Amino acid sequence: MEFIQSAKNDQIKQAKKLTTRKYQERNHSYLLDGWHLVKEAIQSGAEISKIFATEKYLNERELRAYYDQTIEIAPEVAQHLSDTQAPQGIFAVVAVPEQTMPAAFDGQWLFLDAVQDPGNVGTMVRTADAAGYQGVVFGRGTVDPYNPKTLRAMQGSQFHLPIYQSDLGDWMTAFKKAQLPVYGSELNPQAVSYTDVPAGEAMALVVGNEGNGMQAQFLRQTTQNLYIPITGQAESLNVAVAAGILMFALRG
Amino acid sequence: MEFIQSAKNDQIKQAKKLTTRKYQERNHSYLLDGWHLVKEAIQSGAEISKIFATEKYLNERELRAYYDQTIEIAPEVAQHLSDTQAPQGIFAVVAVPEQTMPAAFDGQWLFLDAVQDPGNVGTMVRTADAAGYQGVVFGRGTVDPYNPKTLRAMQGSQFHLPIYQSDLGDWMTAFKKAQLPVYGSELNPQAVSYTDVPAGEAMALVVGNEGNGMQAQFLRQTTQNLYIPITGQAESLNVAVAAGILMFALRG
Repeated sequence: MEFIQSAKNDQIKQAKKLTTRKYQERNHSYLLDGWHLVKEAIQSGAEISKIFATEKYLNERELRAYYDQTIEIAPEVAQHLSDTQAPQGIFAVVAVPEQTMPAAFDGQWLFLDAVQDPGNVGTMVRTADAAGYQGVVFGRGTVDPYNPKTLRAMQGSQFHLPIYQSDLGDWMTAFKKAQLPVYGSELNPQAVSYTDVPAGEAMALVVGNEGNGMQAQFLRQTTQNLYIPITGQAESLNVAVAAGILMFALRG
Repeated sequence: MEFIQSAKNDQIKQAKKLTTRKYQERNHSYLLDGWHLVKEAIQSGAEISKIFATEKYLNERELRAYYDQTIEIAPEVAQHLSDTQAPQGIFAVVAVPEQTMPAAFDGQWLFLDAVQDPGNVGTMVRTADAAGYQGVVFGRGTVDPYNPKTLRAMQGSQFHLPIYQSDLGDWMTAFKKAQLPVYGSELNPQAVSYTDVPAGEAMALVVGNEGNGMQAQFLRQTTQNLYIPITGQAESLNVAVAAGILMFALRG
């Protein structure tokens, strides 16, 4: 087995680049950090081209089938590859799955319109997974799903439900054509309480940017806008909490 | 008006100490960081003993009534007082309000049992505020409510609903005496779905530690334990999201 001792090694430089959107798009793959997530990738049958592991992982049963793709790295190299202070010492290069819009939709979908905090976005994907949603569409301007911080907050949910990086307008048009509601989440005079729409129906829920809400062009296309009635004095809810309340209230 | 140019000034040293629980308890006050929060403190009539402000805030209308308590600080001093990288440059020393357990309870309450992440805890208090809860009890082992990170996530909700730092056992006993349910949040064989308990009743909801859940001694005292049915493959929900779903489902 190959052993890499220096962060200047070319393979390590290439792997580190896979934490950025530009290189993810160019190479159709991303870098996953941590044992729990690498195990999830293996168990879900994700396409893994390389595993970089420090010595302590080399005897793990789950890695046996990946012997040919596994490269041992020194702890200093793990530190370089990770954006955490105390990396576990194992990484995988995972293919970004090709996703094409389904011809028909069922169940519930989450659309992200320029949501920017990777922790919030990752948490929302994890919540969509837990609520049994069919997929999450990352609209333009939304943070990269394969950013290290997003990946940490998703906790492997990208292996449980499909993630699309796409133009939300196309998806909204497709839902309308299928006569399925697209619910915006925005407090405006026409908005209704989320408790006033039926649960369990096929639909899409759009969550907007933390500061600015949904983009006007998409807001115009929603079937209805939902709001969460605030009874206390808080001005608003954390966006991931608000999305969680809506997703669970509307699920099947 | 006094002007402090050095972080070594004694008043600044004292103020900085008020970001730690030990000195907060000793002095019954904490340090609040940022203009939005300081304004909230002023508007809510909180007891403010000192305001440290950089030059740009000195003409703010809201500060006029606090002229005698206001001390100008240099930007370097603001940097020292803050735990953020780009502090706004205004701080207030705010009294920790004396809270005693009410003689009778109504509405909904949130109990925190050894919840440790300040961001999660702050977000939960903000959500409790938005959901119209009556108060939040910080049980022993729960992160400090006046920790700078908790304060940031609370976004001023400590001025909207009372916060108690207390023994959860005493509160649970008091609720039982009043014949009000105390709902645990823990998946065990006796647990029921949160959708199966009535909304809007007076009750307390207990949220447990992120990794270990509720402490056994408290779990034994709950009226019933609630769980959130997970339909996807996610193993769990983020604790602040789970608490948000429960709080909104059970509120009045």
